Amino acid sequence: MNTDSILLDHGSGGLASQELIRQLFLAHLDHPALAALEDSAVLDNDGGRLAFTTDSYVVDPIFFPGGDIGMLAVNGTINDLAMRGARPRYLSLGLILEEGFALSDLERIISSIARSSRGAAVPVVTGDTKVVPRGKGDKIYINTSGIGTLADGINISCEGAKTGDLVILSGTMGDHGITVLVNRSAISLESHLTSDTMPLHRLVEKLVTELPDVVHSLRDPTRGGVATAVSEIAQASEVGIILEETAIPVRPEVRAACEMLGIDPLYLANEGKCLALVDPRYGKEVLAMMRSRPEGSDSAVIGQVTEGPAGRVELKTTVGGSRLVTPLTGEPLPRIC
Amino acid sequence: MNTDSILLDHGSGGLASQELIRQLFLAHLDHPALAALEDSAVLDNDGGRLAFTTDSYVVDPIFFPGGDIGMLAVNGTINDLAMRGARPRYLSLGLILEEGFALSDLERIISSIARSSRGAAVPVVTGDTKVVPRGKGDKIYINTSGIGTLADGINISCEGAKTGDLVILSGTMGDHGITVLVNRSAISLESHLTSDTMPLHRLVEKLVTELPDVVHSLRDPTRGGVATAVSEIAQASEVGIILEETAIPVRPEVRAACEMLGIDPLYLANEGKCLALVDPRYGKEVLAMMRSRPEGSDSAVIGQVTEGPAGRVELKTTVGGSRLVTPLTGEPLPRIC
Repeated sequence: MNTDSILLDHGSGGLASQELIRQLFLAHLDHPALAALEDSAVLDNDGGRLAFTTDSYVVDPIFFPGGDIGMLAVNGTINDLAMRGARPRYLSLGLILEEGFALSDLERIISSIARSSRGAAVPVVTGDTKVVPRGKGDKIYINTSGIGTLADGINISCEGAKTGDLVILSGTMGDHGITVLVNRSAISLESHLTSDTMPLHRLVEKLVTELPDVVHSLRDPTRGGVATAVSEIAQASEVGIILEETAIPVRPEVRAACEMLGIDPLYLANEGKCLALVDPRYGKEVLAMMRSRPEGSDSAVIGQVTEGPAGRVELKTTVGGSRLVTPLTGEPLPRIC
Repeated sequence: MNTDSILLDHGSGGLASQELIRQLFLAHLDHPALAALEDSAVLDNDGGRLAFTTDSYVVDPIFFPGGDIGMLAVNGTINDLAMRGARPRYLSLGLILEEGFALSDLERIISSIARSSRGAAVPVVTGDTKVVPRGKGDKIYINTSGIGTLADGINISCEGAKTGDLVILSGTMGDHGITVLVNRSAISLESHLTSDTMPLHRLVEKLVTELPDVVHSLRDPTRGGVATAVSEIAQASEVGIILEETAIPVRPEVRAACEMLGIDPLYLANEGKCLALVDPRYGKEVLAMMRSRPEGSDSAVIGQVTEGPAGRVELKTTVGGSRLVTPLTGEPLPRIC
């Protein structure tokens, strides 16, 4: 292409759009359904129910330790499908680019999307690109929607938690949120903070196929963090939940950064973690299975479901006290994903 | 809600997000799969192939005669599914809101989305909302992705046009593009220009079920207009196409505005029209069937497919000459959809 940045013309639907699609997008994303450049992709479907999800990504900065906006979009949409027990099958990719955005940055992101999509074996099969004038966007916003297929008998939902269920978190909490926050600001921390962005569908598939009916609810604690996700499950399932603060895994460097900044890691976004509410009779098996996979190696039982009152989440604190946990209010951290 | 405009907090994933979802979105869009507020929607699926598409809408202005960004998004995604002969089944809705956007405008748009979705019988089943700071967006950007189901035996694609096929346009050309352009600018025209935004899936369903195998290619001439869409079909199908300028329906007020502004209506976006390339032996039946429906009442045969050279589109002009038609280059009209 005869330019090193995005022009309005790249969103025209005309020749410049075609050039961008062929020379950049199709060079990295090569699924035949996408390459056909039809108005919509035609896909095989093996019957059964579908899972369908959408997410827009507006994270700032677009590159951060451990990932970038493209990888985040692919993994986030895969995880939203996995949280219903579905097998993620197909992704769409909708880009809103700001005029003047560097083509080299776009290529870096598309290449990252391609790598994440291939690694997860979930192809991008349809896409769209719009360009907005300078000052009407911020470099790049990405929408990824996803289709999954759901095997018979799987019924995992936020409403499924039952009294006595164990609450398992698949790893350390807060890594993504604090990494983005620190990298966005002028804060200079001596740290090795990295995002936890990662796809969880293989871990979930192992659980739901090898231990059928054991997992009742799954939720990835993204915006609003573990506190908000646990509250939503308690509300939707009409149960109470008690969390043990000492049991919740937090990396020392994340804890240190949170203390310095006065942030509660319970509200920080995670992009490669899930909460699993499981039948307590199979707690040991679930935990062992989750820990046996790299994405769940730090899994821990962090609490248990009680009869209620419905929606009440209580945290037993490190110092022996207890406090109520409520969903996030206020927006301390915009554009974390 | 205790505010009349969008706050960053509405995108936090916390309580303010929940309030926006419950008090506004679910008040208008009430499909059970959406109301469940799960990470992804679980949907029935009757087997067979799927069609999957995505589109982001960044049109400026967001309200225009004949429609708004919400209606445009619903109809546009429905049409992209219909252009493969698919039956549109489910929509997703991804919003990127600018901080400070008026809630009353948002409600007007959500209500328009709900009306369009109900009218088309294609429900919104999953959604996501992000909020970006002032000056990092422009009021509202919308991504709609869609899933359709595709009956056995239907194979409609841009590659399907055959020598001798008739090229039928389902109505007048350029209405949407010129309407948005005139309403965006300070141009004051004595006119009744209105967008043509409209869903075409019922017209397409009638064609593909009642006249099987007769329709070879469908394309909705959105960005880049009829010229670009016809060129893309000629390229993909490796055929030539001859268009008859006198046969292409254009409203007098659209023609007048185009002449005044020096714009070629052949390149103007349409949002409620399709090009159908059909078996010439059934041309009369197709035309009659298209004209029998309100969305196709102005349908006309505007050209015919030739052996080639592949990708060559020739326009026989009103004055008896002929010129080559090429895809859009340059971006005369950004943010038309």
